Amino acid sequence: MPEIPFSEIPMSEGTIDSAAGWWRTSIIDIHPGSIRVRGYAIEELIGTIGFPDMVWLMLRGELPTPAQGRLLGAALVAAVDHGPQAPSIATARMAATCGVGLNNAMASGINALGDVHGGAGQQCMDLYAAVAARMTEGMSMAGAAENEIAARLERREHIPGFGHRFHPVDPRAGRLLALVEAAKGEGAVTGEAAAIGRAVEDALTARKGKRLPMNIDGATAVVFAELGFPSGLGRGLFVLSRSVGIMAHAWEQSQQGGRIKGPMPPSIPYRYDGASPRPVPAEFPGDGA
Amino acid sequence: MPEIPFSEIPMSEGTIDSAAGWWRTSIIDIHPGSIRVRGYAIEELIGTIGFPDMVWLMLRGELPTPAQGRLLGAALVAAVDHGPQAPSIATARMAATCGVGLNNAMASGINALGDVHGGAGQQCMDLYAAVAARMTEGMSMAGAAENEIAARLERREHIPGFGHRFHPVDPRAGRLLALVEAAKGEGAVTGEAAAIGRAVEDALTARKGKRLPMNIDGATAVVFAELGFPSGLGRGLFVLSRSVGIMAHAWEQSQQGGRIKGPMPPSIPYRYDGASPRPVPAEFPGDGA
Amino acid sequence: MPEIPFSEIPMSEGTIDSAAGWWRTSIIDIHPGSIRVRGYAIEELIGTIGFPDMVWLMLRGELPTPAQGRLLGAALVAAVDHGPQAPSIATARMAATCGVGLNNAMASGINALGDVHGGAGQQCMDLYAAVAARMTEGMSMAGAAENEIAARLERREHIPGFGHRFHPVDPRAGRLLALVEAAKGEGAVTGEAAAIGRAVEDALTARKGKRLPMNIDGATAVVFAELGFPSGLGRGLFVLSRSVGIMAHAWEQSQQGGRIKGPMPPSIPYRYDGASPRPVPAEFPGDGA
Amino acid sequence: MPEIPFSEIPMSEGTIDSAAGWWRTSIIDIHPGSIRVRGYAIEELIGTIGFPDMVWLMLRGELPTPAQGRLLGAALVAAVDHGPQAPSIATARMAATCGVGLNNAMASGINALGDVHGGAGQQCMDLYAAVAARMTEGMSMAGAAENEIAARLERREHIPGFGHRFHPVDPRAGRLLALVEAAKGEGAVTGEAAAIGRAVEDALTARKGKRLPMNIDGATAVVFAELGFPSGLGRGLFVLSRSVGIMAHAWEQSQQGGRIKGPMPPSIPYRYDGASPRPVPAEFPGDGA
Repeated sequence: MPEIPFSEIPMSEGTIDSAAGWWRTSIIDIHPGSIRVRGYAIEELIGTIGFPDMVWLMLRGELPTPAQGRLLGAALVAAVDHGPQAPSIATARMAATCGVGLNNAMASGINALGDVHGGAGQQCMDLYAAVAARMTEGMSMAGAAENEIAARLERREHIPGFGHRFHPVDPRAGRLLALVEAAKGEGAVTGEAAAIGRAVEDALTARKGKRLPMNIDGATAVVFAELGFPSGLGRGLFVLSRSVGIMAHAWEQSQQGGRIKGPMPPSIPYRYDGASPRPVPAEFPGDGA
Repeated sequence: MPEIPFSEIPMSEGTIDSAAGWWRTSIIDIHPGSIRVRGYAIEELIGTIGFPDMVWLMLRGELPTPAQGRLLGAALVAAVDHGPQAPSIATARMAATCGVGLNNAMASGINALGDVHGGAGQQCMDLYAAVAARMTEGMSMAGAAENEIAARLERREHIPGFGHRFHPVDPRAGRLLALVEAAKGEGAVTGEAAAIGRAVEDALTARKGKRLPMNIDGATAVVFAELGFPSGLGRGLFVLSRSVGIMAHAWEQSQQGGRIKGPMPPSIPYRYDGASPRPVPAEFPGDGA
Repeated sequence: MPEIPFSEIPMSEGTIDSAAGWWRTSIIDIHPGSIRVRGYAIEELIGTIGFPDMVWLMLRGELPTPAQGRLLGAALVAAVDHGPQAPSIATARMAATCGVGLNNAMASGINALGDVHGGAGQQCMDLYAAVAARMTEGMSMAGAAENEIAARLERREHIPGFGHRFHPVDPRAGRLLALVEAAKGEGAVTGEAAAIGRAVEDALTARKGKRLPMNIDGATAVVFAELGFPSGLGRGLFVLSRSVGIMAHAWEQSQQGGRIKGPMPPSIPYRYDGASPRPVPAEFPGDGA
Repeated sequence: MPEIPFSEIPMSEGTIDSAAGWWRTSIIDIHPGSIRVRGYAIEELIGTIGFPDMVWLMLRGELPTPAQGRLLGAALVAAVDHGPQAPSIATARMAATCGVGLNNAMASGINALGDVHGGAGQQCMDLYAAVAARMTEGMSMAGAAENEIAARLERREHIPGFGHRFHPVDPRAGRLLALVEAAKGEGAVTGEAAAIGRAVEDALTARKGKRLPMNIDGATAVVFAELGFPSGLGRGLFVLSRSVGIMAHAWEQSQQGGRIKGPMPPSIPYRYDGASPRPVPAEFPGDGA
């Protein structure tokens, strides 16, 4: 029987009898002529619920209310793209000139949405949750936000979701917060995450002496938290949204043509700052030739 | 100046002056406080158009009509998942147990949606286009479909988009065709691709002596063709849709736990059918030790 | 000028004048007719140094001694493969049946070598370094190993690099340690990492009451540490080595044929344990059709 | 039982009884305490054969002669890197600033080595094979090369493996050809692929009126063909070699620091050439807020 070292072995084992349980899922059940997603017949879902509703159903197990589905859709619309200088987009555009499929170009772009490039929304959801946790200990929201921010700044940690390099106000953030407010009016969300987000912004402003307004990551974090998503899925939802931009840019690049497009025009050389020319030491005998 | 061999060089060169044109796009324009997608201010799009409308705008440059947006959304809902035994889904689930981010697990799954696993819809759109091209030469739709199918079968080519292993009828296909019919009633589509699809099904049935009903690939190909997408984007739209299933399964697996989950339970050994045990030839001196 | 939100912006900015410094490297310098790696002319390196020597030069900036190069090569040989049930290998094999290029199949497999699947060697190098750090505080090697292991076990942490599920002794580990011993005799390495590795094994044995012998991750960690690689490159070297297995298996699968090969035979169904069949709620109007 | 549509189903089915054959391999056999690669005990291979020998054994099933192993190693040394402006390298460097693992950065870079960026060597091997096929029909080598080149140029096809943008002579090509010549002297190779390569260069020169010297792709194609590799593996061997450069650059970038590094300095804006600013049409009701 094949063996697998500690670093390569699954935690649990099955037997031939239980092989069918090696892959188990609550998401989809398929029989001849029948495909059910979370219990619903696929043909009843198609054309009946919206795409964001389907995203919700797949990830959460239940359908959202129409208002929840609309709010999720708005956040998915908001984060699709921020231009070809983002490494995820640039990667997909370059890949599109290298002779790979559109799926491969998209995969390469998505693969770059790591903790630093794609993780700020998830981290911001964790920040809001940390403030909420302090509140359950009896602290006021403002106090909880101040203490959480103070603790993070003392640890010299980055505060995700706030501040912007050039935008005085991120046009996406205000719009998303207005939609959350409207959804709260409809009873679709409680508005607590939005309130925490504003409290964090105030606490940051007080500490920094200037306003660091909520950015797209902070605002989508509000939406996803209001809708009850765990922070790990906040990351996934951002990836799904940005996938649209990645696809659009990869496609646009493929229509523009070009082969093996590098990151900068060849007329802009890179800088070499390494060793000066030198011969290979004599101890390597060159026995190849 | 760095040089690049033929296999590694961009086709066109720029100069420092034209460096800004190395990356050019019609998709998005960004200025301080302003993000415009295809000319529209992002804050006007968020909460106003649906996510499928945004997908359309990003890919096509113009907004769809609401009816077109709904039909696109229906196709995106239809193709999200077909269970954990598909290699794309299994790959993402396995990756989720290997200590990578959700974006990396999604990328690995998406990367597998190649010509064979993710390309049938694109290929089927090309098939419909080939039938349409024969029609522009004055042939009837039925005749064009018959000739195209006959030519492909003679070349022993696979006919994408039709036939199913177990499903007597793919429940997704009929529903999508009904939606196209309804959209035709609204004037949102012409219905020509749907008619071609049915003609191809008839031609196949006549040649095979049994009905090979349209499957999900054939039906989404109808929808995307009706909506005017080029076939290459048909591939991308399938990838976007299936990304939802890939994310949901990777997330579910991460919640189930497990480390370095292999394709089958360890109790099911793989079969080795290679060389018998043998010593390393003496000509390799083992100078390492 | 395009703007980039905090989560998407490079830390440092350049100007047109300094654009050439945006990409800077000490690795390679290229001029018409000239390619120099770390100062050496490529044509002097080809056929003169071995491939592991080149790996070392690229990563470290200087050539290894021949004995160092041989030891590195031995570790690269050791970790190439552990069978098709490892998710990295299975992923590449499945991808090879999905209509993507060999490079894409390799990328998908390599992408799965995350912290859990590919990180044990790196983590074990960090463990050895932690023991060495305790020694610089005046502690004996045995004491340092015992304290480090005790501290980790108290924190319920996994101890990387030791123990094996079935192998009484990992045949790769003993051989690699013997090569380190021989290299120490030649003066190529000090042997300290090997000694620490054995001390960790002893400390683990004492705590567990049974021997948990060093496995491939623990042994390659010894080799890479003896050779002075930082732990992050230990990860990279494992990836390079396993890439060979990933390529070989993807290629073998492509020669075996098969289309869209799933993780288990279709005759083994997966288990659905989700919601029972149910209709879509009436609040979704089905306005698509 | 789960079902899979035509586009998602494996070609062959197994049964529970034959599940162990779903994954079968001639590469590696593993038992408790025993790992055999192509029949050889792993502990006999480690420290005895070189890394290129192991690459050969994994891919081919038999060990090379030492001379063959050295020649393979020389080709692997030759192709490791061509600077940070190649999209594969740039992609990995950018990924290294996005918060993903080194394996993920390597995967993204490798994923870009598609038909255009990484396929020239494979295509050149096919070109040499096409010339050889014409020779088996009784044509002289020079005549076969001329006819093949003429046919391809008439079809306006790219001729892979020859010509260089700036290098008057690719310094890697001449060195590799000299090593093939030496290996021929040792009886390790026949020299036929090298002769065909030179004949192709002559034929191209005659047609173009100026010399298009063999480049790295043409020269590694000679080596891999001389050594009997199929062209598909020529692609894989290039990927393996370039993986070293991808790793070295990703690592160097991670040591340089930077977060979310884009393709060009932010001071170089991209060019937007799309629609002018415009409002969202009134038919989208903005029901989200």
